[in-house]
Amino acid sequence: MIKKLAYKDAQLVIGQGALGALEGFLKRRAYDRYYILCDEHTSQYCLPVLLFHCEALLSAEIIEVESGETHKNLETCMQVWLTLQDQKAGRNCLLINLGGGVVTDMGGFIASVYKRGVDFINIPTTLLAMVDASVGGKNGVDLNGIKNQIGTVAQPALVLVDPVFLDTLPERQVDNGIAEIIKIALVSDAAFYKTLAGFKSRSGYLKDGAISHSIGLKKAIVKKDPLEKHLRKSLNFGHSIGHALESACLQQGIDVLHGEAVAAGMIMESYIAYEAGCATKAVLNATVKMVQKHFPKITISKKTEALVLEHIRHDKKNEGHNIVLAIAPAIGSFNLLHLQDPAQIPAAIRYYQNL
Amino acid sequence: MIKKLAYKDAQLVIGQGALGALEGFLKRRAYDRYYILCDEHTSQYCLPVLLFHCEALLSAEIIEVESGETHKNLETCMQVWLTLQDQKAGRNCLLINLGGGVVTDMGGFIASVYKRGVDFINIPTTLLAMVDASVGGKNGVDLNGIKNQIGTVAQPALVLVDPVFLDTLPERQVDNGIAEIIKIALVSDAAFYKTLAGFKSRSGYLKDGAISHSIGLKKAIVKKDPLEKHLRKSLNFGHSIGHALESACLQQGIDVLHGEAVAAGMIMESYIAYEAGCATKAVLNATVKMVQKHFPKITISKKTEALVLEHIRHDKKNEGHNIVLAIAPAIGSFNLLHLQDPAQIPAAIRYYQNL
Repeated sequence: MIKKLAYKDAQLVIGQGALGALEGFLKRRAYDRYYILCDEHTSQYCLPVLLFHCEALLSAEIIEVESGETHKNLETCMQVWLTLQDQKAGRNCLLINLGGGVVTDMGGFIASVYKRGVDFINIPTTLLAMVDASVGGKNGVDLNGIKNQIGTVAQPALVLVDPVFLDTLPERQVDNGIAEIIKIALVSDAAFYKTLAGFKSRSGYLKDGAISHSIGLKKAIVKKDPLEKHLRKSLNFGHSIGHALESACLQQGIDVLHGEAVAAGMIMESYIAYEAGCATKAVLNATVKMVQKHFPKITISKKTEALVLEHIRHDKKNEGHNIVLAIAPAIGSFNLLHLQDPAQIPAAIRYYQNL
Repeated sequence: MIKKLAYKDAQLVIGQGALGALEGFLKRRAYDRYYILCDEHTSQYCLPVLLFHCEALLSAEIIEVESGETHKNLETCMQVWLTLQDQKAGRNCLLINLGGGVVTDMGGFIASVYKRGVDFINIPTTLLAMVDASVGGKNGVDLNGIKNQIGTVAQPALVLVDPVFLDTLPERQVDNGIAEIIKIALVSDAAFYKTLAGFKSRSGYLKDGAISHSIGLKKAIVKKDPLEKHLRKSLNFGHSIGHALESACLQQGIDVLHGEAVAAGMIMESYIAYEAGCATKAVLNATVKMVQKHFPKITISKKTEALVLEHIRHDKKNEGHNIVLAIAPAIGSFNLLHLQDPAQIPAAIRYYQNL
């Protein structure tokens, strides 16, 4: 587990006992009313832990939404907004998002536009949400099955990353978060990559400060390039194809987690970069090795492939009609690759399928 | 009419010929694609004028929504977002909002969260939208009949205020805008109030730079207090009761325009301020005189009154459980009044009804 309080500033507390910071924060802010957004899993497993650590929240209203990416949409937001309105939640209320990426992404969006913005706190309860959704301020919901089409960039008033929630997390959900840790190592920190490569099992990722180091790397990147002019795009490594694959599976009801799709995306994007002469063989090998260690191969049917290509064409990350990939030219470094020939994507899919 | 180009900076152009600035702006920005949001009125009366002044827009996609406050909601937003998605609108597209406050408020919100924000231009076509919605960056839609519950604060890339659109505006729509001009004079500029009081008819408001002066006053206030800590709250004069009255009428299908409700709101709020010893008799008299000159009295039934009180209780502008009114203590000045006794509102309604 993360060491006792690995990191603490006014907006972010990481480590064992992080939840302990909540009571004092709430006292200082004097909100009118607390709302806790959770899903059916976190209301059962995580809410009691939260309430145990923060008595002030015993008076909070609980708003439960259905879990899973398929419910991360405007219909669910509408239900929550109407609930807040019914409850006469004012501008000085606080929304606490307790859950994985779906809850924190959607809750951040809900809060950022309700009455033109009320404060919110993110308490990620999955490894993925801890390392990925806890800094950066991006939020959003899916539209018509396409990921994060509607959203804002809004900073939470506070993020609490407490490993207490990881104890009960299923292994597949742990792996889901590992993909993002591998990603950030590959594009930004060669030494960290070495550490990760040395882990004997997934439990390594939960120990030795891997979580806080990973969050620290992301935080530094976002701070250097808040408007995503260049460096912050490194966080998109694996995500152009990964997001498209995730959306394609989502549309067809195929059960694929974000981290699983991103892991496959990292292999395919590294392959394209290698074939274009823009990345070393070492990067491609490292990516394949790390991904194969943690993730089963996703079968990509012809139908899925067609949807993937469709999604990539209208990716938010594209510039004009150019498909732009974030790649690791060498382990621990980052560059952008403007894709000249879209046929490179089917080739990458074949490479991944034949591994 | 406004004099030829009364004001021009990088974000705002006011005056006759303002539309002429569009072609050059579009050339400098190099957007991938243009979308024009309009309603059935502006697509008929204003779109041809716009296209005549800007050839580049002949290739734009037109998105038409139904006019009127009852369509300023998330359902309409959803239709527009789905249209943008169908059209594969990317992050580098531009949305041009051509219409009154409903179109500019809703279009600004639509653009500000589509793919986490694309650029938008506001081209207000009513007097109200010109003086009120063209600066400040507030946007939003109604939820369950309550005004502007969901929205963001996002600055348009450009605002063009061109009086060419006022030629065909019905008189009632002109008066709708006059309320906001009277408002800003009463809370911020005694000399401007004198000028307005001297106008023989509504046409005065369309001449002599009243529009550009009014926008200039709002711009200065927003610049001094972008986060609405104090001074910007002056823009809410008449709006606590006015908004509540507008929402109450909207819910019951009673035809009341924003400016008409705000005009009534200014009388009622000035009455409360005067009764509380916080405003001079001169302010109350001036408000009554100016409002009566331009607006018919709104009949407030017992049912409407109950709804008004309900809405005021969960106004965004309240602080905690305190109802806060923006008032003019003297002509041309501003203060906040924390309402101790909610019974003052029914008393103000009676005063207004008995005028």
